[in-house]
Amino acid sequence: MTDMIKIGQQAQQASYTLAQAGTAQKNELLTFLAQGLREQQGGVLAANAIDILAAQQAGLDESLIDRLLLNNERLNAMADDVERLCQLDDPVGEETESKVLESGLRLTKRRVPIGVMGVIYEARPNVTIDIAALALKTGNAAILRGGKETINSNLALLKVIQQALISAKLPQHSIQYIENTDRALVAQLLKLDRYVDMIIPRGGAGLHRLCIEQSTIPVITGGIGICHLFVESSADLEKSVLIVENSKTQRTSVCNALDTVLVSQDIADRFLPALAQKLAPHQVLFKADEQALDILGRCDVKVEAAAGDDFDTEWLSLTLSVAVVSDSDAAISHIRQHSSQHSDGILTESLSQAENFVNQVNSAAVYVNASTRFTDGSQFGLGAEVAVSTQKLHARGPMGLKELTTYKWIGVGDYLARP
Amino acid sequence: MTDMIKIGQQAQQASYTLAQAGTAQKNELLTFLAQGLREQQGGVLAANAIDILAAQQAGLDESLIDRLLLNNERLNAMADDVERLCQLDDPVGEETESKVLESGLRLTKRRVPIGVMGVIYEARPNVTIDIAALALKTGNAAILRGGKETINSNLALLKVIQQALISAKLPQHSIQYIENTDRALVAQLLKLDRYVDMIIPRGGAGLHRLCIEQSTIPVITGGIGICHLFVESSADLEKSVLIVENSKTQRTSVCNALDTVLVSQDIADRFLPALAQKLAPHQVLFKADEQALDILGRCDVKVEAAAGDDFDTEWLSLTLSVAVVSDSDAAISHIRQHSSQHSDGILTESLSQAENFVNQVNSAAVYVNASTRFTDGSQFGLGAEVAVSTQKLHARGPMGLKELTTYKWIGVGDYLARP
Repeated sequence: MTDMIKIGQQAQQASYTLAQAGTAQKNELLTFLAQGLREQQGGVLAANAIDILAAQQAGLDESLIDRLLLNNERLNAMADDVERLCQLDDPVGEETESKVLESGLRLTKRRVPIGVMGVIYEARPNVTIDIAALALKTGNAAILRGGKETINSNLALLKVIQQALISAKLPQHSIQYIENTDRALVAQLLKLDRYVDMIIPRGGAGLHRLCIEQSTIPVITGGIGICHLFVESSADLEKSVLIVENSKTQRTSVCNALDTVLVSQDIADRFLPALAQKLAPHQVLFKADEQALDILGRCDVKVEAAAGDDFDTEWLSLTLSVAVVSDSDAAISHIRQHSSQHSDGILTESLSQAENFVNQVNSAAVYVNASTRFTDGSQFGLGAEVAVSTQKLHARGPMGLKELTTYKWIGVGDYLARP
Repeated sequence: MTDMIKIGQQAQQASYTLAQAGTAQKNELLTFLAQGLREQQGGVLAANAIDILAAQQAGLDESLIDRLLLNNERLNAMADDVERLCQLDDPVGEETESKVLESGLRLTKRRVPIGVMGVIYEARPNVTIDIAALALKTGNAAILRGGKETINSNLALLKVIQQALISAKLPQHSIQYIENTDRALVAQLLKLDRYVDMIIPRGGAGLHRLCIEQSTIPVITGGIGICHLFVESSADLEKSVLIVENSKTQRTSVCNALDTVLVSQDIADRFLPALAQKLAPHQVLFKADEQALDILGRCDVKVEAAAGDDFDTEWLSLTLSVAVVSDSDAAISHIRQHSSQHSDGILTESLSQAENFVNQVNSAAVYVNASTRFTDGSQFGLGAEVAVSTQKLHARGPMGLKELTTYKWIGVGDYLARP
């Protein structure tokens, strides 16, 4: 029996100690962790081999198995990432506001760790190290729950993490892992609001929905990008084709890749054939609405009529939905209906059209004449990325270290200040 | 049949328009609202009289009935508050960060309204105006659900609000009210995550728990203060007595009023009799642990042995829990177990004790030698107070206008910048 309440209590207790740890101690811990990842590769790779074998026997497809796979190179890259984290500023302790009230009370707003994070993720074992390192750098404890396909790899990595914690004289329970793969434990984790301060799901829409529906703990949803580019009448069409090509094909399996192009009807006749020509060599499959199909059907590209929920699909592949819209208002209204509020943009030469789009489209990141692929922690200069939030509270868009902190108000008086 | 989905859609639609409204238009709206409150008192008071009569017939106690009561003076005070809101800076549109990425993309972080707020509250009709005005000032739409005891007053106030919206040429559905008093509609509101961005419960612990358990929308919990002061050995006892007196008796029915005093055992013999003497004239009832009872039992005050969940109770009255603790660690551990993380403080002359307490106690507001009564939007200089959050995400402590906004990232390129 896994005792989730005990896990929660241990995490909370560890978080009290972690919150007091100085930057030097936390960086020392990360250095131990990186060392462990370099020095204990034998054990980790042996555990990973068990997961890989099981995946092969279960007939998982090659690309999935590749995501599970660890090797010396990947472990060294993980160690590099952890070491890079040491270089980043520690946001904890920063005082972002300070004032003396009329009454004489000195009031200060100080950045502090959030406390305990619960992170539920699928596949990829590197997330285990990634999240642990980000949590620890910001003085947070974490309870991890990875996919069952990587259970052996994750437990081997957890051992490396916990050894680093012990070496750095920090609580071993700072990072815990729910070993039991029973799904009921996820439901229990989501109700531990007494001990856990934030839930971060990293996975598909189903996992996010499960967390939203069942959690009594605040959930950071995100990472699902149904991203749009609207090619407005005045856009430079030649350059627009290049931006669509970049957004769609630079990397297809990521959340900031383009899913839908909306084209002003004035220019559809000129733009779509040019786009088709540029994307055909990439083997892009178009899912076109009636008007777009009419034009693309005459081009030498793979094209099908859009159907069902095609416009509500995050493709994560070389598929691109296309619709012809009458004007800006129609484009904005399409985006409001279908976007996941991750990244949406307009391509235009008109200042007023750009302004209007930026004001009306309420996504975490809104672009003018730029690729949706920019929405990324390292592009944004955050140094590290915890997740890309598509909700509106706490953090929006790429979340870095600061977004793993909260604040407290500290009021210092002289006994005599009176409210 | 109340169609909650339609209410949600209408609110979302209105929020798109509100988000574009300039500060002048929003202030004009607030001016119309204040005028309405001054000019249409007849209708509002007639509606209020129905609520008061019903409350009297239902045998509600006098203090509750007084909370429901409206009169000319109270309506004018509400109008004054709305006018004061016009003077405050509009946080919407402010750009809080801006940088040019290496790739040439200009990236800006802009403050925008959250969208649609759902607010569930009990009793007091002034909350209807208060929340509507704060939401509108920040360009948010709101769906309100007040207590059934004030339904007639609230609907009359809603009429004033919607007339002001129409006069200001803003969507009437910017503020909607769930008229049907069936509790099932609250449950439906809590699931409208497609249209509603934030839930703010204003009421007791039961309402908060209901929202936490049932909502699929992020909830701002707060407003429940189980507040502590720890009198440490080195404290100036004479001045400490005055701070406890202020925290406990200045206003008893508010969330930042003191609930529990923890006293270091070294000084309990000297401190508690002095405190008893100061609080006796206020008719304070002490709920004392064994050691405190031993001392207070010999003083001329009302005292009982603390029992059951006395230390987990927000008194909202002239009752004060008291415990004697062995040292700072014991005080901190008591606070971690019993505090609602609203406002907690230490009284001490020791810098290291103060530092340690501030670091270890993770409440929204932590005080040194000051009253817990400082935790308040107007004390903190926020101008207005939406709620006092005791959760850790998005906002902590008193929430002002800024805390009713989120941000979006705006990236402007020249077609050529590439991620």
